[in-house]
Amino acid sequence: MMKKLAIEPLTRAAFKPYGDVIELDGAKQIPINLGTTIRFHDLCNVDVEEQGGHTLVNLFRGQPRALPFEIKMMERHPLGSQAFIPLDDRPYIVVVAPAGDLDESKIRAFVTRGWQGVNYAKGVWHHPLLALGKVSDFIVVDRGGGEGHNLNEQDLKESLWLTDEAMR
Amino acid sequence: MMKKLAIEPLTRAAFKPYGDVIELDGAKQIPINLGTTIRFHDLCNVDVEEQGGHTLVNLFRGQPRALPFEIKMMERHPLGSQAFIPLDDRPYIVVVAPAGDLDESKIRAFVTRGWQGVNYAKGVWHHPLLALGKVSDFIVVDRGGGEGHNLNEQDLKESLWLTDEAMR
Repeated sequence: MMKKLAIEPLTRAAFKPYGDVIELDGAKQIPINLGTTIRFHDLCNVDVEEQGGHTLVNLFRGQPRALPFEIKMMERHPLGSQAFIPLDDRPYIVVVAPAGDLDESKIRAFVTRGWQGVNYAKGVWHHPLLALGKVSDFIVVDRGGGEGHNLNEQDLKESLWLTDEAMR
Repeated sequence: MMKKLAIEPLTRAAFKPYGDVIELDGAKQIPINLGTTIRFHDLCNVDVEEQGGHTLVNLFRGQPRALPFEIKMMERHPLGSQAFIPLDDRPYIVVVAPAGDLDESKIRAFVTRGWQGVNYAKGVWHHPLLALGKVSDFIVVDRGGGEGHNLNEQDLKESLWLTDEAMR
């Protein structure tokens, strides 16, 4: 019997315990450059300075995953936030659990709608990138340098499944 | 008599005095997530910590500019780098001059080809965003918080023109 995970719409309110939703709705807008540009200001909390860390800008190119997909593990970055900002507006899935000891009963899945990124707060458990449909590029803003080990991975006692039915 | 600016192709080598070209060619590639994702690693030098600054992630939505375009001023951020990362691969124009006192004879223009971003190094003079063709979105990684004033603007003694002919 496959244990299925509900897939919820990604909203700022629902994602608040895990970090930031990066989106334009609700962002502070500042007109600049004599009004020719709008600055959507400060879209997420970049928190990377612990133990001498600094900001890295990277691009992640993810192969698409097919559903049903088995969630067998989670990971976290205990020393820094990690933001994923898509280059397009196709949906992808985000799977998270609160920081602290991993509580498998608290794992939740979200699907994006339109152009939405996520910023995992420091220590928040998440599944590695789950692109859908085709190869997908994301700008990733995370922590480099400094002291300490910034990755923990943990296998689940019981797998959770993302299914097509849950997407509907 | 309009003084015209040559428009050069944007390359890492040509742009080196002004900061980083953000592109995938030549980037360090790290396979992660059991090989399902490639991490194009550390694409630019985020330099924002002077006087207590920290990293901001923003989105700039720029109106397109038409050619011929008159370059009348330049600006710089003396306390931090500023990266522009396009959400698509349409060309745009970047106009720069070396850090230090503005030397108008050293102003250069570049046009992007394919998916290319730029990261202006701290203090490098540049023109505000010059999108082309249609409204264009860029992820902008720059400095917030901290002490000090991080914007200088300077009018040119003599305007420089970007023309269609220079794009060919």
